[in-house]
Amino acid sequence: MGSNSTPQTAAKPIRCKAAVCRKAGEPLIIEEIEVAPPSSWEIRIKIICTSLCQSDISLWKLSAGPLSAFPRILGHEAAGVVESVGENVEEVKEGDIVIPVFKRNCGECKDCKCQKGNACSKFLVEYPCGMPRDGSSRFKGKNGETLHHTLRVSSFSEYTVVDVTHIVKMSPNFPIDKASLLSCGVSTGLGAAWKVAEIEGGSTVAIFGLGAVGLAVIKEMSDGGADYCFECIGLTSLMQEAFNSSRKETGKTIILGVEMHGTPLSINPLELVMTGKTIIGSMFGGVKAKVDIPIFATKYLNNELNLEGFITHEVNFEDINKAFVLLQERKSLRCIIWMDK
Amino acid sequence: MGSNSTPQTAAKPIRCKAAVCRKAGEPLIIEEIEVAPPSSWEIRIKIICTSLCQSDISLWKLSAGPLSAFPRILGHEAAGVVESVGENVEEVKEGDIVIPVFKRNCGECKDCKCQKGNACSKFLVEYPCGMPRDGSSRFKGKNGETLHHTLRVSSFSEYTVVDVTHIVKMSPNFPIDKASLLSCGVSTGLGAAWKVAEIEGGSTVAIFGLGAVGLAVIKEMSDGGADYCFECIGLTSLMQEAFNSSRKETGKTIILGVEMHGTPLSINPLELVMTGKTIIGSMFGGVKAKVDIPIFATKYLNNELNLEGFITHEVNFEDINKAFVLLQERKSLRCIIWMDK
Repeated sequence: MGSNSTPQTAAKPIRCKAAVCRKAGEPLIIEEIEVAPPSSWEIRIKIICTSLCQSDISLWKLSAGPLSAFPRILGHEAAGVVESVGENVEEVKEGDIVIPVFKRNCGECKDCKCQKGNACSKFLVEYPCGMPRDGSSRFKGKNGETLHHTLRVSSFSEYTVVDVTHIVKMSPNFPIDKASLLSCGVSTGLGAAWKVAEIEGGSTVAIFGLGAVGLAVIKEMSDGGADYCFECIGLTSLMQEAFNSSRKETGKTIILGVEMHGTPLSINPLELVMTGKTIIGSMFGGVKAKVDIPIFATKYLNNELNLEGFITHEVNFEDINKAFVLLQERKSLRCIIWMDK
Repeated sequence: MGSNSTPQTAAKPIRCKAAVCRKAGEPLIIEEIEVAPPSSWEIRIKIICTSLCQSDISLWKLSAGPLSAFPRILGHEAAGVVESVGENVEEVKEGDIVIPVFKRNCGECKDCKCQKGNACSKFLVEYPCGMPRDGSSRFKGKNGETLHHTLRVSSFSEYTVVDVTHIVKMSPNFPIDKASLLSCGVSTGLGAAWKVAEIEGGSTVAIFGLGAVGLAVIKEMSDGGADYCFECIGLTSLMQEAFNSSRKETGKTIILGVEMHGTPLSINPLELVMTGKTIIGSMFGGVKAKVDIPIFATKYLNNELNLEGFITHEVNFEDINKAFVLLQERKSLRCIIWMDK
């Protein structure tokens, strides 16, 4: 065990509240659940706050496919405190502030040691709706039923269990709501600009996913297309628009949005060759969680990064469905959901 | 005029032989044609040798669309000597050795002055089957009929006329058959590796377009996919195979082949994001003809570049249809067609 002062709750199940998704697209229900103690290489986290990402909306609406399993606990952007750790966990101990991250970073495999990209080849089999090592669940519902995990995080719960390869330790004086932002959305955007697109000063950049930016306006603004076009939602039509809006010869289209409906992206190969454009896919903006998030955190503490501007709304946990409405109506950028206020 | 000693043929039409394509996919017919004198900014070239490129086969088979017009003179890989030049031509003079290049490089526009890519925005309207400035033809057939140009070169003729933006001057001691190779195929490959993919030492590279390289073999050879996959034919199925064979996270698929049938390239956007792969289109391997071909020529003269290995066959002009058969049967890499041997 990583801690000398074992908490009273350690090694026992914890009963707490979670927002359970019982059916695709229906309001989440706050229910009492049971959270198992962490197994080997696992960490049980008391969530302090969580925030809502566009991918939560997509996953919430998803009614079929390997990423869909009900009942489930959604949520993958959060910050919390370590309640207890399982065997073999040396990286954090009880009381540490951590953020869970859906993208694995074991730090030891060939891919994690490679300078490029952010793949992690630690586990050969992927369990999208369970713990990463064996696919099992740490959550039980009111009648002992299994509640499924989402993206290895499931932060819409007062307590959750995540694998040690999916957490980043934060400084205790880092503002906890800003920490939550770094666990997915903001890091993806920063990584995409810094690590994937490698944007140079003076470049024109177009972001597809706010819904407000029309094709014609962009082309006019940037004189023949933007140097870098980012698609952030996961809509094939928007990817197409981004590709069309990128500059001939030097334009790069960076696809960040996760398309969950199997709609193919159709590219005219003659146009691709004639225009010399580039399309790049990127999950989590090429960010290696344990390496790069501490760099973003330092930038924030040095006033080189504005995180405040992303937080447009705050709600208590019991009002979590309001956060879904706000994001769907495009009224919020990020809504912080406080677990205990 | 760029020359002091004006040749006797200058400013007059020249009667000569050309291999005319009267119908898609049918053998070329050697006919007597008339080649008009060069207009302003144009150069009339006596072709010494020409070679057959895969794109010639595709264009020869093409029976519809903007790149198709009959009767026409094919051929875009060649070397020759300047017979005469039109007004305003200062870059070359009678007797200079030149290679025609299908990809324009005016050297003066914003794109030509840009470090990246090889676009040229000199002319706003493209005339795929005529001279680049006004779409007109310099060729007349036996009954005075118009013969169409192909790719602004039309080298399957003893004489042709090309725009000054489409030629590169070669040193008179450069072997003429090797010069022909630099006017398209070899330069495309060199450029793609050097300028587009920016291949690093130790990288694994897979070439799709020889037909002999299977997907399974490649994956095994390169341990999880190749770092760089080049598609060189213009077949959507081969592009797909190249994309599938590229390495996760760092793999780049470079599309060089010109797809002329409008078959879309269908990419699974979720796979693109999950794998973090890159797709790049490139025409003529990103080569700026007047800038980069002289660099390749110098490399050849310094024994840093093997061009001999590409020449597998040679035929006389009257046997040009043999070159088509050899390439279609995958028996040749490059067949040199000598105009006057």
